[in-house]
Amino acid sequence: MNFGLIGASGYIAKRHVQAIKHVNGDLLMLADPHDNVGYIDGFFPNASYYREIERFDRNLDRLYQEGNAIDYVSICTPNYLHDSHIRLALRNNSNVICEKPLVLKTEHLMLLKNLEDAYGKKINTILQLRHHDKIINLKKRISNSTQRHQVKIKYITPRGNWYDYSWKGTKDKSGGILFNIGIHFFDMLIWVFGSSTNFNVTNRDKKSFGNIQLEKADVAFELSIDYNDLPYKDWTPFRSITIDGEELDFSVGFTELHNTSYEHIITNKGYGIDDIFQATDLIEKMTRNE
Amino acid sequence: MNFGLIGASGYIAKRHVQAIKHVNGDLLMLADPHDNVGYIDGFFPNASYYREIERFDRNLDRLYQEGNAIDYVSICTPNYLHDSHIRLALRNNSNVICEKPLVLKTEHLMLLKNLEDAYGKKINTILQLRHHDKIINLKKRISNSTQRHQVKIKYITPRGNWYDYSWKGTKDKSGGILFNIGIHFFDMLIWVFGSSTNFNVTNRDKKSFGNIQLEKADVAFELSIDYNDLPYKDWTPFRSITIDGEELDFSVGFTELHNTSYEHIITNKGYGIDDIFQATDLIEKMTRNE
Amino acid sequence: MNFGLIGASGYIAKRHVQAIKHVNGDLLMLADPHDNVGYIDGFFPNASYYREIERFDRNLDRLYQEGNAIDYVSICTPNYLHDSHIRLALRNNSNVICEKPLVLKTEHLMLLKNLEDAYGKKINTILQLRHHDKIINLKKRISNSTQRHQVKIKYITPRGNWYDYSWKGTKDKSGGILFNIGIHFFDMLIWVFGSSTNFNVTNRDKKSFGNIQLEKADVAFELSIDYNDLPYKDWTPFRSITIDGEELDFSVGFTELHNTSYEHIITNKGYGIDDIFQATDLIEKMTRNE
Amino acid sequence: MNFGLIGASGYIAKRHVQAIKHVNGDLLMLADPHDNVGYIDGFFPNASYYREIERFDRNLDRLYQEGNAIDYVSICTPNYLHDSHIRLALRNNSNVICEKPLVLKTEHLMLLKNLEDAYGKKINTILQLRHHDKIINLKKRISNSTQRHQVKIKYITPRGNWYDYSWKGTKDKSGGILFNIGIHFFDMLIWVFGSSTNFNVTNRDKKSFGNIQLEKADVAFELSIDYNDLPYKDWTPFRSITIDGEELDFSVGFTELHNTSYEHIITNKGYGIDDIFQATDLIEKMTRNE
Repeated sequence: MNFGLIGASGYIAKRHVQAIKHVNGDLLMLADPHDNVGYIDGFFPNASYYREIERFDRNLDRLYQEGNAIDYVSICTPNYLHDSHIRLALRNNSNVICEKPLVLKTEHLMLLKNLEDAYGKKINTILQLRHHDKIINLKKRISNSTQRHQVKIKYITPRGNWYDYSWKGTKDKSGGILFNIGIHFFDMLIWVFGSSTNFNVTNRDKKSFGNIQLEKADVAFELSIDYNDLPYKDWTPFRSITIDGEELDFSVGFTELHNTSYEHIITNKGYGIDDIFQATDLIEKMTRNE
Repeated sequence: MNFGLIGASGYIAKRHVQAIKHVNGDLLMLADPHDNVGYIDGFFPNASYYREIERFDRNLDRLYQEGNAIDYVSICTPNYLHDSHIRLALRNNSNVICEKPLVLKTEHLMLLKNLEDAYGKKINTILQLRHHDKIINLKKRISNSTQRHQVKIKYITPRGNWYDYSWKGTKDKSGGILFNIGIHFFDMLIWVFGSSTNFNVTNRDKKSFGNIQLEKADVAFELSIDYNDLPYKDWTPFRSITIDGEELDFSVGFTELHNTSYEHIITNKGYGIDDIFQATDLIEKMTRNE
Repeated sequence: MNFGLIGASGYIAKRHVQAIKHVNGDLLMLADPHDNVGYIDGFFPNASYYREIERFDRNLDRLYQEGNAIDYVSICTPNYLHDSHIRLALRNNSNVICEKPLVLKTEHLMLLKNLEDAYGKKINTILQLRHHDKIINLKKRISNSTQRHQVKIKYITPRGNWYDYSWKGTKDKSGGILFNIGIHFFDMLIWVFGSSTNFNVTNRDKKSFGNIQLEKADVAFELSIDYNDLPYKDWTPFRSITIDGEELDFSVGFTELHNTSYEHIITNKGYGIDDIFQATDLIEKMTRNE
Repeated sequence: MNFGLIGASGYIAKRHVQAIKHVNGDLLMLADPHDNVGYIDGFFPNASYYREIERFDRNLDRLYQEGNAIDYVSICTPNYLHDSHIRLALRNNSNVICEKPLVLKTEHLMLLKNLEDAYGKKINTILQLRHHDKIINLKKRISNSTQRHQVKIKYITPRGNWYDYSWKGTKDKSGGILFNIGIHFFDMLIWVFGSSTNFNVTNRDKKSFGNIQLEKADVAFELSIDYNDLPYKDWTPFRSITIDGEELDFSVGFTELHNTSYEHIITNKGYGIDDIFQATDLIEKMTRNE
């Protein structure tokens, strides 16, 4: 099973490379405008590197026309470029594995869905919380529950000054805190507690907080990248999710979930456009008037 | 003791950041056109990040004019930019710690030396082998020796396809294999066995080999980044240095030597322009007719 | 008739913008990483500008999915990116108008031809000499001629130092002198005098010269961008084509030929892959062993 | 008299190149990350081109150390980079000719003034209105006037969509409309009518309007880049300045004023930091709370 990778020099790319190794895939090609990709020699030293996406596309097309289309293109680029790189993969007859958030607008999901159909390929996204044992157990428990639950999320993960000047801190490139960090939790909560019926939200530059009503839960959330929001004075992230007052600890095993995600994806059990739709829609509405 | 860092997103930058921590320095500012610098939060979360060298310079100048010039600017940029970033640091009244190779021409060393004098600041470079116990012992032993020694270096460290398309594989940006890899060994050998009196060299795209006559040794060397030069068929580097037939193993402790280098530098015992002159001159001559 | 334009800030883009105006087209979108595109306000002030090709693609796709695909995408990017930008246009259901040289390898022509068929769209290229009255008359005259002709081309168009450091002076981006300058003449000559049967060529860094045997002509050519090749000492280009000793002057009217090319293209009489095949093949062979 | 030029590929650079020619200067070096600088062959074909400011600096330093420092470095880069490129020139012992607005903060003016003194070189800026006959006459007339005058400026110069996505439309790079467009007028008015004593301003995304009290005039101004503010429906700029109800037409001769500016500068009569201080201070205050 052959893979390509776009956005190979960034922080999250290495987890994808490891996951490709984990599923015994072969990474043939990588692309990134930044050439800091030497780590690849420890995994796939024969991979071809392209500084320009245009040259990457050339080789994808050639392989496709020779009947050797790459099976999966993994995408780890800045969020606002995801949809374009997804199209590039589909058009070259490859399936897609895209980091979250898949896109920043439901309109883009609809347009991508049409292309998915037109090219007969699948767009997968990484929703690793759905693969976490603790969450899976929670979902089972809640599915049998008829009562309404109280959920509190407090997630303070401070970032230094660099963040503000990186694409992650640029609203129209990352989608902001709710898309960049919130999508994990909101997708998980909707998956477990059902659709959102109402919400209120306050968005600040480095912080979002508010409430969400789901079918089976009332959620109070606070997400922040501001050091000053920490309950203590060091730079360790503060993470807490409680359900009906009880702490849900899912920190163990979190980092291996890219591997699990890839296992599901290559056996056609990956999460896709329909799965991520509700969380995308919710956050889009939460950030509409900014 | 305050530090700035240029070239913060590349491979080697993290060792400098760790060394700054090791000597209890404070890293105030970092610069890199590529914003993949989030790792800094684990070391110096209060550091300011600048995507553009121009903005980094603005802040250096402001601090200097306020009487708070940064003590040391560390430089981890592509080799061909070293001298320019060194000038930037000197002009802002900072000392310099620059990755090897300091520059790619002795002419540049001379020009920098003039500026070092003019601004009254010191340019240090990283020659970590000179800090290695095994090498220090070797130097002692040889200094007492009156005979001529036979040295063989074979260093095959294969690089994937990315290397050719990165600045490291671009001759006028990295200086090629001899500057990028050889400078370590040639500087160490000159330090131990004395000046070069003669040489012959064959330079290929991915490989350089030949002989060097030093005052006290005949050196046969082979440096390669070509996988096909390995004596076996996996991607592990092959490294061997023998002196009079005896293997010199200095792989242990190698990675900590940035810390040791920094310890020396901040106590005014760093290696500088005069120290690196001979190795630079030798390699410049070895690559002249390419 | 709607147009998009990729490579909008470069030297040649303005001629395309004027030609779009000339044929009463509307330019809806332009893309270029460099934002020096203010001149567009004098022609199409309502055009959308995209710094990133990915965002340009997003809008192309949206228009296509809405049933409003752009009719023509004009491409003025560095030569080595042409084929990739052509694919982008085809996949979004647009026809293509691409600057010469269309591509740098016949292999790429074949791959593009397959896509042209697959998407049912036409790739046009700019071969303006074929639209020049003097050349059209020449072709008529030669078509009735049974004798063998002697052609001499000397084209010295000096470039300053910038050229060497621009994409145009970079072999793998521009294809070198023969592709960048020669393609005009070789295509014209093949069009007029028939296919090439043999050639010899000497390629230097700034100069190519040699001979070509065509069905009805022996061609001696010298193409240079070196000031030192000029017969006089100012920076005016020297251009001479003689046929059987007689000067062929086609300098008049040359700059308007983008307009004429566009007129032909929008009436489905544009020149395409088949037309440029022979000249591409010839130059590819001429530069093979470099 | 020798010149260097930073920002050589942008819109305004050509006027500087022409002015250098006009004063019989020689342009030795140019720098720009974008290589669209071929027009230089028509003026100074022997000029060296540097894609990277670091390499430009290397050559400036070399020339300086050889005793051949460049006399003037002209700067046409995005506004927020001006101060850094000015420092680069001063440090290499060159005088400066910088496009307006010189900088975006008076704090930067103070820091630059210190360097001007330290290096003994002069920073000149382009204030071409002060060289316009009509304005010079106006200044004479007003200097003899004891009454208070009523000034109205309406300057609607519509920009297409590209502007918003260029550095000019990015507040922290250009300083916004008041710095980008207003500085011309405000400097001229302060020059003619005396210092500002009070103002009110409304800043919108594409528009600024309000009133300024000068020593001898009440100014009502409206500056806009929004097409919808035009009194008619085509894309021609609308420009009107009235003084006590009388139209001041200075459109004639405007474009030649870079030449005049250069004439003054090379004869040590250029405008500098002190001259531009008041207008910079005024606009800084006008934009402070945005």
